[in-house]
Amino acid sequence: MHGADYNPEQWLKYPEVLKEDIRLMKLAGCNVMAVGIFSWAALEPAEGVFNFEWMDNLLNTFAENGIYAWLATPSGARPAWMSQKYKEVLRVEYNRVRNLHGMRHNHCYTSPVYREKITIMNNKLAERYASHPAVIGWHISNEFGGDCHCDLCQDAFRAWVKNKYKTLDELNHAWWTHFWAHTYTDWSQVESPAPHGENAVHGHNLDWRRFVSEQIIDYINVEVAAVRDANPELPVTTNMHAIDGLDYRKMAKALDVISWDSYPTWHDQKDDSQQAAMVAFYHDLYRSLQKKPFVLMESTPSSTNWQAASKLKQPGMHKLSSLQAVAHGADSVQYFQWRKSRGSSEKLHGAVVDHAGHENTRVFQDVAELGRTLSSLPQLVGTDTPSEAAIIFDWDNRWAVKDSQGPRNCGIGYESTVYAHHRAFWEQGVPVDIIGSEDSFDGYKLIVAPMLYLCSEETGKKLEQFVKKGGTLVTTYWSGIVGETDNAHLGGFPGPLRKTLGIWAEEIDGLFDYERNGLALEGGNRLGLKGTYEARELCELVHLEGAESLGVYTDDFYAGRPALTVNSLGKGRAYHMATRLGADFLLDFYSSLFAETGVYKALDSELPAGVTAQVRTDGEHDYLFVMNFSGQAAELELDGAVYTDLESGEAGVTKLALPVNGIRLLSRPAQA
Amino acid sequence: MHGADYNPEQWLKYPEVLKEDIRLMKLAGCNVMAVGIFSWAALEPAEGVFNFEWMDNLLNTFAENGIYAWLATPSGARPAWMSQKYKEVLRVEYNRVRNLHGMRHNHCYTSPVYREKITIMNNKLAERYASHPAVIGWHISNEFGGDCHCDLCQDAFRAWVKNKYKTLDELNHAWWTHFWAHTYTDWSQVESPAPHGENAVHGHNLDWRRFVSEQIIDYINVEVAAVRDANPELPVTTNMHAIDGLDYRKMAKALDVISWDSYPTWHDQKDDSQQAAMVAFYHDLYRSLQKKPFVLMESTPSSTNWQAASKLKQPGMHKLSSLQAVAHGADSVQYFQWRKSRGSSEKLHGAVVDHAGHENTRVFQDVAELGRTLSSLPQLVGTDTPSEAAIIFDWDNRWAVKDSQGPRNCGIGYESTVYAHHRAFWEQGVPVDIIGSEDSFDGYKLIVAPMLYLCSEETGKKLEQFVKKGGTLVTTYWSGIVGETDNAHLGGFPGPLRKTLGIWAEEIDGLFDYERNGLALEGGNRLGLKGTYEARELCELVHLEGAESLGVYTDDFYAGRPALTVNSLGKGRAYHMATRLGADFLLDFYSSLFAETGVYKALDSELPAGVTAQVRTDGEHDYLFVMNFSGQAAELELDGAVYTDLESGEAGVTKLALPVNGIRLLSRPAQA
Amino acid sequence: MHGADYNPEQWLKYPEVLKEDIRLMKLAGCNVMAVGIFSWAALEPAEGVFNFEWMDNLLNTFAENGIYAWLATPSGARPAWMSQKYKEVLRVEYNRVRNLHGMRHNHCYTSPVYREKITIMNNKLAERYASHPAVIGWHISNEFGGDCHCDLCQDAFRAWVKNKYKTLDELNHAWWTHFWAHTYTDWSQVESPAPHGENAVHGHNLDWRRFVSEQIIDYINVEVAAVRDANPELPVTTNMHAIDGLDYRKMAKALDVISWDSYPTWHDQKDDSQQAAMVAFYHDLYRSLQKKPFVLMESTPSSTNWQAASKLKQPGMHKLSSLQAVAHGADSVQYFQWRKSRGSSEKLHGAVVDHAGHENTRVFQDVAELGRTLSSLPQLVGTDTPSEAAIIFDWDNRWAVKDSQGPRNCGIGYESTVYAHHRAFWEQGVPVDIIGSEDSFDGYKLIVAPMLYLCSEETGKKLEQFVKKGGTLVTTYWSGIVGETDNAHLGGFPGPLRKTLGIWAEEIDGLFDYERNGLALEGGNRLGLKGTYEARELCELVHLEGAESLGVYTDDFYAGRPALTVNSLGKGRAYHMATRLGADFLLDFYSSLFAETGVYKALDSELPAGVTAQVRTDGEHDYLFVMNFSGQAAELELDGAVYTDLESGEAGVTKLALPVNGIRLLSRPAQA
Repeated sequence: MHGADYNPEQWLKYPEVLKEDIRLMKLAGCNVMAVGIFSWAALEPAEGVFNFEWMDNLLNTFAENGIYAWLATPSGARPAWMSQKYKEVLRVEYNRVRNLHGMRHNHCYTSPVYREKITIMNNKLAERYASHPAVIGWHISNEFGGDCHCDLCQDAFRAWVKNKYKTLDELNHAWWTHFWAHTYTDWSQVESPAPHGENAVHGHNLDWRRFVSEQIIDYINVEVAAVRDANPELPVTTNMHAIDGLDYRKMAKALDVISWDSYPTWHDQKDDSQQAAMVAFYHDLYRSLQKKPFVLMESTPSSTNWQAASKLKQPGMHKLSSLQAVAHGADSVQYFQWRKSRGSSEKLHGAVVDHAGHENTRVFQDVAELGRTLSSLPQLVGTDTPSEAAIIFDWDNRWAVKDSQGPRNCGIGYESTVYAHHRAFWEQGVPVDIIGSEDSFDGYKLIVAPMLYLCSEETGKKLEQFVKKGGTLVTTYWSGIVGETDNAHLGGFPGPLRKTLGIWAEEIDGLFDYERNGLALEGGNRLGLKGTYEARELCELVHLEGAESLGVYTDDFYAGRPALTVNSLGKGRAYHMATRLGADFLLDFYSSLFAETGVYKALDSELPAGVTAQVRTDGEHDYLFVMNFSGQAAELELDGAVYTDLESGEAGVTKLALPVNGIRLLSRPAQA
Repeated sequence: MHGADYNPEQWLKYPEVLKEDIRLMKLAGCNVMAVGIFSWAALEPAEGVFNFEWMDNLLNTFAENGIYAWLATPSGARPAWMSQKYKEVLRVEYNRVRNLHGMRHNHCYTSPVYREKITIMNNKLAERYASHPAVIGWHISNEFGGDCHCDLCQDAFRAWVKNKYKTLDELNHAWWTHFWAHTYTDWSQVESPAPHGENAVHGHNLDWRRFVSEQIIDYINVEVAAVRDANPELPVTTNMHAIDGLDYRKMAKALDVISWDSYPTWHDQKDDSQQAAMVAFYHDLYRSLQKKPFVLMESTPSSTNWQAASKLKQPGMHKLSSLQAVAHGADSVQYFQWRKSRGSSEKLHGAVVDHAGHENTRVFQDVAELGRTLSSLPQLVGTDTPSEAAIIFDWDNRWAVKDSQGPRNCGIGYESTVYAHHRAFWEQGVPVDIIGSEDSFDGYKLIVAPMLYLCSEETGKKLEQFVKKGGTLVTTYWSGIVGETDNAHLGGFPGPLRKTLGIWAEEIDGLFDYERNGLALEGGNRLGLKGTYEARELCELVHLEGAESLGVYTDDFYAGRPALTVNSLGKGRAYHMATRLGADFLLDFYSSLFAETGVYKALDSELPAGVTAQVRTDGEHDYLFVMNFSGQAAELELDGAVYTDLESGEAGVTKLALPVNGIRLLSRPAQA
Repeated sequence: MHGADYNPEQWLKYPEVLKEDIRLMKLAGCNVMAVGIFSWAALEPAEGVFNFEWMDNLLNTFAENGIYAWLATPSGARPAWMSQKYKEVLRVEYNRVRNLHGMRHNHCYTSPVYREKITIMNNKLAERYASHPAVIGWHISNEFGGDCHCDLCQDAFRAWVKNKYKTLDELNHAWWTHFWAHTYTDWSQVESPAPHGENAVHGHNLDWRRFVSEQIIDYINVEVAAVRDANPELPVTTNMHAIDGLDYRKMAKALDVISWDSYPTWHDQKDDSQQAAMVAFYHDLYRSLQKKPFVLMESTPSSTNWQAASKLKQPGMHKLSSLQAVAHGADSVQYFQWRKSRGSSEKLHGAVVDHAGHENTRVFQDVAELGRTLSSLPQLVGTDTPSEAAIIFDWDNRWAVKDSQGPRNCGIGYESTVYAHHRAFWEQGVPVDIIGSEDSFDGYKLIVAPMLYLCSEETGKKLEQFVKKGGTLVTTYWSGIVGETDNAHLGGFPGPLRKTLGIWAEEIDGLFDYERNGLALEGGNRLGLKGTYEARELCELVHLEGAESLGVYTDDFYAGRPALTVNSLGKGRAYHMATRLGADFLLDFYSSLFAETGVYKALDSELPAGVTAQVRTDGEHDYLFVMNFSGQAAELELDGAVYTDLESGEAGVTKLALPVNGIRLLSRPAQA
């Protein structure tokens, strides 16, 4: 599928525009549009007064022209009359100030009025369109995120806390409230965090974030229930985006299809590979949420209008970046937006159709070219990503590790650490899933758990079993520190991982940004690594309790003490990096580890820097994507398999010459 | 005229100070004082209780000593009793929090109470002093600025919007509110922008600023009406300062005399020429508002107390910077303040009389010297500035171009671009007016419209006519993008300028601060420019539609495409810079253009860097100011005209040697 | 004494922890614990319901094990039930928003309810424990600081202002309110400063800070009164910390013992001497508040969790930094905290007992080693610090000089200037008191008054007398500018110091951070100084009125004018630095001055850079602390006195070799 967000309700006064759009969509090879995303005011101009005529016309026209629609529920922004009549729908911010009407994505998720009003609307949409031939799925609201601190939400939070902890005694222990006399003596004293109230009780902050996630999911369920009955077959999605605020792994359970909005800052460096690897991480994450193909719901065909500088896409980058999504598991490539708004805040955001209004633009031609490519690759739809490695990335861990005070308030670097480990996989073409602690570890040969600060006893046991059964585990400093409510593990860090790793981490030294230590590899270590690498940010001082030292610190009073260890347990091994190491080390380390563990690689060749290979398979054929993000031309030899070029049909391809921003699509007999 | 702000109400307990002040004023050659600016509490210590005795004494003493007064209306700060009794006079800020009493310039402009109270006060002042021999004009309030979001202002805004758009349909189209379902369905839903409400609807933001300007002008009219009747001959001014918030061009229509407060940061670099050029721009702007001489109402005789570092003025700079104002059209040089306050926030702001209290200070002597110079130049009063060039600088354009999101949120650089173009005139001694799109273009040979992002169809037509009739127009990238309400021009940029410029601007590339492109001049171009210049920030990709390329990009995927164009239309020409070019290019470009267009120059000589020449004329004699801001000594040869030194009387001057901070005043037979 | 904050109420569910703690305390040589600091919720779980059982057990166990307690009153954080029932106890912030329940140190000091509730609690604690054998003193609340803007505090402020000024006329003059029409016409108009109200009236700001200090002292007196009767012998302290907000010199009068919390950022540079000198300044300050030994109430045995990076203490630093406190007059070394909390915001703050829970940690061993050292030095308790020099450091001056606008809003550098002068004493082992203008100047040979911006007539006279009687005074630029209410001295700066210094400071030039001037010493000056030193930030232009120039400016238009002067008056001399000079100059300058004045030095030897010597004496023996903070090994020769090593007992020590972070304790026959 190929398409865009489409907002014809902005152009109802310009009938020629709507007509021209259909012609242009076909010209661009666009066959799917997300419609109705911010249409509440157009669909219900006054309370209880509905106007579906324009939507009827639109969907009918789509159907006549072979264009499909993700039909959105319009709750991303409410009409002015609703804010005016029902103040409770307006979100109350962290500082306890209620919003005025305006902007978007800022209603109260708890409000009974809002839930009632959207239910009425969704029912009507579903009755009218759930079986419309143009409609292929529901796009629930838009980019959920943020939180509300109104009285309704406070009550819901209290009920949630009470349900979780049952007794005040349990609550007080879980949040360690006897510290600073914060003991609760009545459930009514529980209140959300506030800048001018409670804000440094980590367990409290963590549970608030969990509550917000669950409350939003509860809200989503209300919306889904209101559209589901009319046609239970119609799949439901919502476009994910505000990665930090919501536990998408939990949210995924409420959806049939995962979709997300991707806005990289291409060309902020001459070499785009860092950016590309980060985007690849998110593609891998979203695919892993349901372990099946996803939808790239939004991307820009040119530039955004909200980044520091609106850089144009270089020639080739539109195709490369769009197919990158497909390479990692997307079955659809869509844009925000089809046509540039004439006014308001996003009028300068890139779109397929510019203010100029015609097809004779570079951007339109790039889009049309991609449309032709996508339509020539129907075999890719629904194919799998074969991966034997996984990285653990838990929402509650990242909330907790970033909220905690110390050991480096100038930057704990959680996400950047996760990206850095993932990049070593990306650079070597090793497909990898991004999973949660509660997911199954079966079927993986290698699991990486970077900075697993919050690690429950259960997760500790699961990882122990994983290793005992022959798996390879990689952990880092600052792991196994706290349990589910952010209370420290007693008895010695890394708590539930101590036995598996065979170490006791006594202390951790925070370094300033300008400081460096080093890792000196032990001679003849099992990974065959040599020499010295830079270490920074955090240096854990560990004692060996069964583990073997593979490398030691080079500096400070702890020079000579272990900085890299491995422990054998059962049939497997557990590696531990006691300090933050750079990209060069991670590349070398994982290169050895990939050989040791024999994990599946997309391509058995050496990949030039900034060039990656990703693979999808239908069990019969593998579909290989070789992509050059290096900012310079690159060449590589393929491995011995029989390759055919998917676009040109050329058979027996053995080497590739990739220009800047180049991509080649190949097929081979399935290997996985 | 020469003088200062004077606040004797602070010193009523020190009678010897008031007496001494008169002696010192005469010693300093000061013959005009702005009085009563913050005297409301002194004039009306309790509601309806008035005390004019001290003001009577003051003005009488002035009259006896040949000193004149700008008599202020005291609304810049209200008495505590008023805030206490009438909360509505306290301004409500952007965040909807009402101010407490304190500070200044923060009353509600709409408040009927405030308007009533100031009307009573102004009536009384006018009755008593409008014909006083010492009083030469009204100084209305002080440095108007800021906005108020109270309910009274909301109502006024709604009325203003309704009056402008008549129907909700018109309003919704103008602000493009169907985007994000922001459609208004009742006038009562209209509300001013808010950080926690609507703040990204550009048309809304723009109209709010227009409303604020007009509401303040409306308020000014109330104040003026209250003083006018008693003596319709007495001119009215208000000191302009908060340049960004108010449309001074509209405000100028309410005033008889333009005055402004100038506080450059002299000596923040060794070379003061950048600072001097910027100040010159503002002098030119304020003179152009009414195209007649203005008053420098405030400046500091030494340092301010609110800049990052309070640097002292070097020897010579006081005379140079004061006469710079005269050179650009000022007929009066005045200071804030006559005598340093003993306490409160401005006690350390520079003043003619220091806390030491006597005349034996460097600053007092500098002021006295200037007093002698000014009194020797009566022939300058009322003289004109001959200019055949103009720069367009519209308030609504600058609001819009800075409010819009993209293409460079890290800095669109509007003002700095305008200053850069102006500086090329300043460096070559070309007098230039700073005009608005709605002003007449008649009489100009050359018009520059830097970054005319907001360009209405009418302005487009006016510029087209200007060129057709033989004028030369210079524009830049990011022009002709939106119309009056910030809605994009459809059909191709630069919209209404497309025909005049002979180009279509398809895309614009935003560069990060660390990026550079270049302009390579075409061989044998009509301006005789050569070589390569640096380009940065924004690079427009244009197609020639009749225009000729004078130079092309050197880098990126658009290397070789036009970056500098010229189009011939009727008897004139229109130049377009598709990218931001540096000071070196602008100097060379305008140098060629001045030759090509034959615009009037103050002096037909080569000026050293950092040295400028400005001119005033009475039609019989030209008065030339040659000023050295370069931070080093400079020499120049005059052109062939017959020059007499205005200060020394030396005739037949042919060359000048200017020390650091040096200035020479010359007269010659009129040329313009 | 040696000990820590101890919070067993967090561990009541872990009875084995409480038992283990006693064993570990003894093992660590810890004999004093501060208990009950945040125990209000544990002691009074519901209004009027008290639970002292756990405290009974704790103190009894302490008594049985030879451990003493500072018993805290628990007002540092209130129980949730109190916030819920009595909103008035919640502080109202500067922006007039009342806090929600949460955090700590944020009650209203004026609230009658809070005062009543803490009085009941304190009475009960006193009745029960004031004569308990384990209790050695009262620890009133915790780290007082901040201010409250509620209506109760506004009324108290109005009463305070009225009591101070008696008439509105006096008030208006003192705060110079006729500026900007801020004249008060009724006491009810007086209001605390606000971000959206009055905030730039310096006298107003200054008096608000004075009021807040006095109101908190008033509150402390309420708490003290409630515990005093039960055992008038029991000393009272409170741990000082929030240095900027409260006038600790006034607060000291309400206390029997001074204690403070010290948290340096050791190892943020390779060389720790700058940090060490700053800590030494504060030790000297707190000792000087009552001119007797103080308590180091809190410090960390390892790292904090709130600094940018939580750096570990290098080997040796724990002993060195702890004994540094003793060297400057501490009689007790205590930590926050004994045992790490399991959860909440400070769970990662360093503690004697780690989450691991046992004694086999580096940190515990460092603490235990210090315990042994301290227990071997009983002779130090109660000994004096002999000092013949003092630095003036007034709270009202620092508030005023930092609040004032100009002459360097980018940084007036008050504290850093004071530290820099103090460091010259520290580096040369000269004991120095930190005193206030209202303290006695008797007994000092040398007084330094850096940046004495606020200098009353009385202080001017006292300093004049001090010099006349033979004392040596050192002042700097920006002194003698304002009087008690921040109104400028009229007639010429430095106002009341003008005669003593023999200069008139006409102007002061503010330099940007990137600018430099220089000081060129006059040949053959009385201090024997030579060459040129760097000058920066502020350059005062002074006229000699009896003083002699010792050095002149090297640059700018005032090159050649005096920059360093000395005036002889009576039997003494007054030196004045007209500009900010660097550490190199201050070292050389004070070295000469120490020789000239003959002030007492701890050691008559040359000290290597970063090594200091401090001394305490009992009149019979001097106890010398030689400490190496330089980050490298150092050696020095002692002077001719007879030295014995206090730890090893080695007699006749004549030279010292100090490793990194090394310290030597020596005794000698008393010299002072």
